[in-house]
Amino acid sequence: MKVNGIPYRSIWLGSDGYSVRIIDQTRLPHEFPVVDLTTMEQAATAIRDMWVRGAPLIGATAAYGMALQMAEDPSNTALARAYAVLHATRPTAINLRWALDDMRGLLAPLPPGERAGAAYARAAAICDEDVEINRRIGEHGVALIAAIAARKSGPVNILTHCNAGWLATVDWGTATSPIYQAVARGIDVHVWVDETRPRNQGAHLTAWEMASHGIPHHLIVDNAGGHLMQRGQVDLCIVGTDRTTANGDVCNKIGTYLKALAAHDTGVPFYVALPSPTIDWRVHDGLAEIPIEERAGDEVTKVWGRDPDARVTQVQIAPDATPGANPAFDVTPARLVTGLITERGIAPASAEGLAAMFPEHAGVAAQ
Amino acid sequence: MKVNGIPYRSIWLGSDGYSVRIIDQTRLPHEFPVVDLTTMEQAATAIRDMWVRGAPLIGATAAYGMALQMAEDPSNTALARAYAVLHATRPTAINLRWALDDMRGLLAPLPPGERAGAAYARAAAICDEDVEINRRIGEHGVALIAAIAARKSGPVNILTHCNAGWLATVDWGTATSPIYQAVARGIDVHVWVDETRPRNQGAHLTAWEMASHGIPHHLIVDNAGGHLMQRGQVDLCIVGTDRTTANGDVCNKIGTYLKALAAHDTGVPFYVALPSPTIDWRVHDGLAEIPIEERAGDEVTKVWGRDPDARVTQVQIAPDATPGANPAFDVTPARLVTGLITERGIAPASAEGLAAMFPEHAGVAAQ
Repeated sequence: MKVNGIPYRSIWLGSDGYSVRIIDQTRLPHEFPVVDLTTMEQAATAIRDMWVRGAPLIGATAAYGMALQMAEDPSNTALARAYAVLHATRPTAINLRWALDDMRGLLAPLPPGERAGAAYARAAAICDEDVEINRRIGEHGVALIAAIAARKSGPVNILTHCNAGWLATVDWGTATSPIYQAVARGIDVHVWVDETRPRNQGAHLTAWEMASHGIPHHLIVDNAGGHLMQRGQVDLCIVGTDRTTANGDVCNKIGTYLKALAAHDTGVPFYVALPSPTIDWRVHDGLAEIPIEERAGDEVTKVWGRDPDARVTQVQIAPDATPGANPAFDVTPARLVTGLITERGIAPASAEGLAAMFPEHAGVAAQ
Repeated sequence: MKVNGIPYRSIWLGSDGYSVRIIDQTRLPHEFPVVDLTTMEQAATAIRDMWVRGAPLIGATAAYGMALQMAEDPSNTALARAYAVLHATRPTAINLRWALDDMRGLLAPLPPGERAGAAYARAAAICDEDVEINRRIGEHGVALIAAIAARKSGPVNILTHCNAGWLATVDWGTATSPIYQAVARGIDVHVWVDETRPRNQGAHLTAWEMASHGIPHHLIVDNAGGHLMQRGQVDLCIVGTDRTTANGDVCNKIGTYLKALAAHDTGVPFYVALPSPTIDWRVHDGLAEIPIEERAGDEVTKVWGRDPDARVTQVQIAPDATPGANPAFDVTPARLVTGLITERGIAPASAEGLAAMFPEHAGVAAQ
């Protein structure tokens, strides 16, 4: 999407046709540093140090990391090493593993001389496929926004949590895709951006996306959404998800459940936008079956930001003797979710609704 | 309560019998500065600059401010001036007005020579009355904690929001009073402290109270409470309130409503601790009738804390182009409140429940 009027993706090929360009997202929103990756090792650093984040973007960066390696040295040894180095960056990231397996499966049978060209082509295709999935999510989701716009005056107020934006994907984002498409259609929208403590991805990334694309928005604390819904100031909630179960339970950034409860209590529609590969067809009860990552307590007791001297630094908000507890995700039960916006359409958040839209998985779901 | 083993109140008379001592709460939790107030003007500064906050403590500080003035100059002119200066510090604070009216009503009829002594005695009585009310709230509330302790092993996990602690009152606090009394009885408790964005009173004040008194606790982001309740890690919620309606709707710090929704959804008891003067018997529908203060947006876009050089500073977490929206309170409907812990006992959060416990107000409530 746009940054100061210029369209960007979160990863793209340099004009030399070889280097790969990304945004160092750890320095957003206070700087906008575009970084050239010219070696596989640099791509690994970009993933490991979280310059890039979000499952689709991690996968795309890993694919281009393989391509950079093949351009430098297309030998079997180098291929195996690239797989190992890239996989070790974030070993639990499913999408990373998927992209690496895909690339290795393509490249290993090829003669070394053909590998670089094939790797760049496949990495580009992985990016384009992600863009297309998210474009379709937006196409289905924008209908919800258009319907609200048709029956009210003033902007459609949309609340979102965390960053399920173009920065987490290759373009469009998931939860943000309907918003960008509404803007493209000239629909008057206004976005409530949850700051999303503890890591503040809403304040750092989603707010920056909205500001950069020129979309009217306000940053709010995570505490505020319920009040805004009570007062009729939210027309629609759209969030992303890390993992959705076969019955429609949604695992997403901590605090999503609280917003879904408020939406349910106040009659505000609560939608979750997701590419269908994030549906885990083997899991049928999110609360019982999904383990929740506990992260370091100092993410809670400390906050990053820019100080009055324009230095980006971390401040401690609690006494030294106070430990933080930091569950990173929560599970929103399907009963609180109005619908799941996928690349195929909007499915009810239920086993039946998902199985009907993805019949090829229905067998797994019924097990 | 205790700070490093030494019992404190939030306001007390100096050993000279004249000066008044308070804690500059704006510098907690990173420093613990005790400040001597020796003039009425200093007391006014302490209120205006929020060195002291919380309705009961503001009232007590204003009362002692009048006493300081009477000790210096007990004339009618000085009395009128003290009233005006102290009242102007936070003109919308009901408790401030009440304390000043009480003091002026006592002092004005007295000969100037008797005013200083009477003023100090009355200020001390105002403090002692507040302590007694909060002690009684704790006495009723601790029974809830004791009952949970009797039926489970391990600590009783209590979640609280914002700071309704001894720092906001003269001693004990409201929501914290049952917790302090449980600790005094040897009950094993553990407190989940919501950081309470945007102003972080949980992180700055409640966590400091818990750490200083030696009570096991963790700081959590405001997003985390729902997840903890889903997983059975919260036995009881207790929060304070700024204003409770005659039908039991609770106006409190922004985000309280979200925690009440989660408690209701997960079957966790949700109690509100309050001195009965915070019941507004004229208001019968909190959502419709209570206007919500909108505070400055930069409380949302900026966060205070201690940087790595041990300087207390403010960091900006959002892009320059992102505005913050900052509703300061929300209303939790009575239907989500398990009970109201008052100095008289625990009342159901309903018009009938409150009228039965406070029959002297039932006429007003029925109007």
